[in-house]
Amino acid sequence: MTIILGANQYGKAETRVVRIRRDTGRHEIRDLNVSTSLRGDFSDAHVHGSQAKVLPTDTQKNTCFAYAKEKGAGEIEDYALELARHFASDIESVARARVEVEEYRWERISAAGSEHPHAFVRCGQDIRTTAVTVAGKGDAQQAWVVSGLRDLVVLKSTGSEFAGFLKDRYTTLEETSDRVLATSLTARWRYQSAGAAGAAGAAGAVDAGEAAGAAYQLARTAAAADWGAAHAQVRQILLERFAQVHSLALQQTLWEMGKAVLEARADVAEIRLSAPNKHHFLADLSPFGLENHGEVFHAADRPYGLLQCAVERDDAAGAGPAWESAAAFG
Amino acid sequence: MTIILGANQYGKAETRVVRIRRDTGRHEIRDLNVSTSLRGDFSDAHVHGSQAKVLPTDTQKNTCFAYAKEKGAGEIEDYALELARHFASDIESVARARVEVEEYRWERISAAGSEHPHAFVRCGQDIRTTAVTVAGKGDAQQAWVVSGLRDLVVLKSTGSEFAGFLKDRYTTLEETSDRVLATSLTARWRYQSAGAAGAAGAAGAVDAGEAAGAAYQLARTAAAADWGAAHAQVRQILLERFAQVHSLALQQTLWEMGKAVLEARADVAEIRLSAPNKHHFLADLSPFGLENHGEVFHAADRPYGLLQCAVERDDAAGAGPAWESAAAFG
Amino acid sequence: MTIILGANQYGKAETRVVRIRRDTGRHEIRDLNVSTSLRGDFSDAHVHGSQAKVLPTDTQKNTCFAYAKEKGAGEIEDYALELARHFASDIESVARARVEVEEYRWERISAAGSEHPHAFVRCGQDIRTTAVTVAGKGDAQQAWVVSGLRDLVVLKSTGSEFAGFLKDRYTTLEETSDRVLATSLTARWRYQSAGAAGAAGAAGAVDAGEAAGAAYQLARTAAAADWGAAHAQVRQILLERFAQVHSLALQQTLWEMGKAVLEARADVAEIRLSAPNKHHFLADLSPFGLENHGEVFHAADRPYGLLQCAVERDDAAGAGPAWESAAAFG
Amino acid sequence: MTIILGANQYGKAETRVVRIRRDTGRHEIRDLNVSTSLRGDFSDAHVHGSQAKVLPTDTQKNTCFAYAKEKGAGEIEDYALELARHFASDIESVARARVEVEEYRWERISAAGSEHPHAFVRCGQDIRTTAVTVAGKGDAQQAWVVSGLRDLVVLKSTGSEFAGFLKDRYTTLEETSDRVLATSLTARWRYQSAGAAGAAGAAGAVDAGEAAGAAYQLARTAAAADWGAAHAQVRQILLERFAQVHSLALQQTLWEMGKAVLEARADVAEIRLSAPNKHHFLADLSPFGLENHGEVFHAADRPYGLLQCAVERDDAAGAGPAWESAAAFG
Repeated sequence: MTIILGANQYGKAETRVVRIRRDTGRHEIRDLNVSTSLRGDFSDAHVHGSQAKVLPTDTQKNTCFAYAKEKGAGEIEDYALELARHFASDIESVARARVEVEEYRWERISAAGSEHPHAFVRCGQDIRTTAVTVAGKGDAQQAWVVSGLRDLVVLKSTGSEFAGFLKDRYTTLEETSDRVLATSLTARWRYQSAGAAGAAGAAGAVDAGEAAGAAYQLARTAAAADWGAAHAQVRQILLERFAQVHSLALQQTLWEMGKAVLEARADVAEIRLSAPNKHHFLADLSPFGLENHGEVFHAADRPYGLLQCAVERDDAAGAGPAWESAAAFG
Repeated sequence: MTIILGANQYGKAETRVVRIRRDTGRHEIRDLNVSTSLRGDFSDAHVHGSQAKVLPTDTQKNTCFAYAKEKGAGEIEDYALELARHFASDIESVARARVEVEEYRWERISAAGSEHPHAFVRCGQDIRTTAVTVAGKGDAQQAWVVSGLRDLVVLKSTGSEFAGFLKDRYTTLEETSDRVLATSLTARWRYQSAGAAGAAGAAGAVDAGEAAGAAYQLARTAAAADWGAAHAQVRQILLERFAQVHSLALQQTLWEMGKAVLEARADVAEIRLSAPNKHHFLADLSPFGLENHGEVFHAADRPYGLLQCAVERDDAAGAGPAWESAAAFG
Repeated sequence: MTIILGANQYGKAETRVVRIRRDTGRHEIRDLNVSTSLRGDFSDAHVHGSQAKVLPTDTQKNTCFAYAKEKGAGEIEDYALELARHFASDIESVARARVEVEEYRWERISAAGSEHPHAFVRCGQDIRTTAVTVAGKGDAQQAWVVSGLRDLVVLKSTGSEFAGFLKDRYTTLEETSDRVLATSLTARWRYQSAGAAGAAGAAGAVDAGEAAGAAYQLARTAAAADWGAAHAQVRQILLERFAQVHSLALQQTLWEMGKAVLEARADVAEIRLSAPNKHHFLADLSPFGLENHGEVFHAADRPYGLLQCAVERDDAAGAGPAWESAAAFG
Repeated sequence: MTIILGANQYGKAETRVVRIRRDTGRHEIRDLNVSTSLRGDFSDAHVHGSQAKVLPTDTQKNTCFAYAKEKGAGEIEDYALELARHFASDIESVARARVEVEEYRWERISAAGSEHPHAFVRCGQDIRTTAVTVAGKGDAQQAWVVSGLRDLVVLKSTGSEFAGFLKDRYTTLEETSDRVLATSLTARWRYQSAGAAGAAGAAGAVDAGEAAGAAYQLARTAAAADWGAAHAQVRQILLERFAQVHSLALQQTLWEMGKAVLEARADVAEIRLSAPNKHHFLADLSPFGLENHGEVFHAADRPYGLLQCAVERDDAAGAGPAWESAAAFG
């Protein structure tokens, strides 16, 4: 038996890059939280302490700032692809680079009836995210793009049931045909080339890498606006389905939300949804001689239900390392 | 020398009350965080452990839920006034009741092109607040209303200078005529009867209580919509002035914001502003041969400047206990 | 009526200073979070945007680092006094300087059976604090020292009752003679010269400033170890009294804790305690045919009771601005 | 192409269970945060909204409380195994149950020179964790135990270098032979039967399940004290190695820490370490005419390096689902 180094990665987490475009008097702002992570030939760094192949995390941070200038203020997917391609292509020891970006939303302050050219106010609760993985060098290079959002806090004040569930010795919950349903949604969806999945399915032998490579080509050639439009469309579908589906359970609502996204966008191979059930308990007002027909609730903190599912195409190209995040280690 | 009990108060903090109005199919939501705090004759509770005069904090919580039903889903100032009046009037041992409420903002989900009647999404970053204090019983009862907001995150990408400052041995900061100015604003303003201040000034002998009592009368008779309209107006003025003032310093911007609020609303006696200077440092790209003309910034966490000021009327009625929060104890 | 600038202050918050003493191979560590705040003649900065009298917050930060080197790695009270004295004495426009410091506790890693000379592990939950205020210049200069701790999380699994309380229409809580009592204590105590209080009482005309000045003299002449020893003693008294007092209510426990501190230390003029009642609700196991005699609890988050009180000497010198924190503004 | 339900799981997160043992006057406390998660035949719940096979998360919560009574206040690994076995064995629709537990550390308050029998104070920063997975029913049932800790905050004030690293166009970091090294360590290690690995290696065909099953047997038969002793030993090894290894890089330190754990304990198959590099930047005091030989540092928040690695036995039984956490979904 030998003790060996297993999977490992390193990088710079949470570099807070703010990019202002000021080509005209009407400024644009991109407010980002960028994390980079590299895998590759770093055995010596661990086992012998040799840093010869280690690009410092400080350098990775510098690169995030430099690329914000050089590569501009476009969509976060493009920015992450540029960074990840750079690390994977230009640093000899790097086999795989992952770049995760969060974007905070701002809107212009409305002053004297019109939008101000350089003053902004943070808007919304939800944060736009992407996680881009690039593996390999040269022609063998592949890329995966997972985009998403988190902290999308939604609530329905009716149109939600929970009944007919399994009961055992420890069950005390009462069935209900009318409850508040609320969650803080995290959604992440994996892009593929719109044609890749079908091709993969048809050929029966196209490996995940090729399909993902195709997705990457799409990414490289697509106009920057497309990523933003895709994100806005998915977000809107999630909101609409949450609102419109009469919910028999949060699990069913999640499934319907995910399915609608895949039906609307052929370039989404799968979507993963994670939804804490933010419980709203009916306040018991009967001791005070008051009725409470779904009017007054206690919004509880912990514990909370946690519902998670993936919705996917049965012929989707493999995900490869697209979903491998830093969370696996700790 | 004797060891004595000094100031003391107790209550229930952070009761999460959610109130749904469902009189019609178009539901309304009020999402509140309510904290109550009582002062009065509680010496026995401390010194002898006797609870005979102590209304349990659990009862205070129950009352928050019951009043959400009984007194409805109006403006948070009205709700807080009802609660505080109840504790001060109906509980013999209570000399002063303070009720603080935070309200989280929701907007309707837009589905299929129209606003959904019972599905909502959290919006904005900022939280609406109020802190109501009611002291005394019967005709001697007085009330103070402080309303506000917190977490209003704003940023200007230009139109901000910082120069001509005092320099000493430890000064290394360079002057700048163009910087990013960003903050997460907390603002709280104290209402008075629109006529009270002038009267107080004229009479020269009207005590703070009477003026505050007048403000309270205003509060009691005002239509619920007024508190909301006042809050919206103050919020908009703060945003506009932040945007429009060419800033020589954050202190100056705060002054201009506060002054504009008092100029616009005769019923605001004073406003207090607290603004962390969320520093955006220009990334040094020169080592990479890149110029950076106010385009790429590092958004820093700590330390941060903290600028705080009050703007007030010189003839305002005294504030009494309006500003005394739980923070004084810890 | 004129709109005027009211109270105002500014400074640098949360400068994270770490000071290593490495005079010998056995290093010492001071891990600090330092906030400075200045009051004085800053009207021009607000009203006209002139910074001529404004010492930048960046300079204040620099001074925190420089003083950590120049003034060393002693007790936080001494460090804060040095900084506050500097700002109040050396900066013409400053009338009053306040320096707040939090200290994070570390202990040596025990390796191979002995304490390691330069490797440390964070210990404890509680954080040591001080808030020093220095006002005036030259002979008229006065100083106030408030020391404290926060996040001291304690729990008693029995020896706590809550009964005999006031009941009204909204009361549903049942009385109990045996409950879990838990809190996360914040305590802050104000030092005075051990002789000052009595003198002040006797003279009947000694103003707060003189007594506080006496306390300051004490502070200046006391060996550094004294502040630390005082802090350790107060912390231990708080823990012991929490443990030993049979609690009829958390308010009573707080009173006993505070009183014991004042009895033990003549140089403490008053102590303020703030204690969230971290409710532990007995889990209802009866539906499962199980008894629960104080064995299984649900630790709730919100809402929580919040109990706050001051315990003081009736002849204590006035507190002056000792308790005025940044919280007053927002 | 068909849209299908992919991986999914659901459960109750963060149930805050506090268990007091009061068999004697000397109470014991277990303060836990418990999360349950179930996988299995839940397609109908998603696709058709049928809850017939869904054990409510509320029931899972109830079970956590009931088992704290029924199964006692032992080690968290035993408690989690009992819970997970119950869900996997007794609920028809459950194919796999995962139970994660965090334990908060308390120590007795020392009063009047001796340990108090029922008063406690939270101690340490680090939290003990376990994640237990049980799959299958009856004889085919398998179990995996991953134990760990998080928030173990450690710092070395010297004995750490970082030099000889790869440099590219974006590198500005200077090499150093003496820096502060600090991290907040997360460690998780997977247990196996002490004999399982060798057996697996020798047989060359023993599947992961069997080895894990052996580990489970170990778990079931081991005295409760063993889990605690193992945890204490691993924690101590991690601390000692952090202290003793002269660090050429944090990656090297992590490797040495992990390796030492595996060398010491044959029942640990692998360990995963995740370590943010909590940067301590030397304060530049030269503008003030002061030298700074590793004495004064600025402790930065973001960005931070993030170093992660696994250390494992080359003949370890497969990990199966041991590492699959909820994080994968969001």
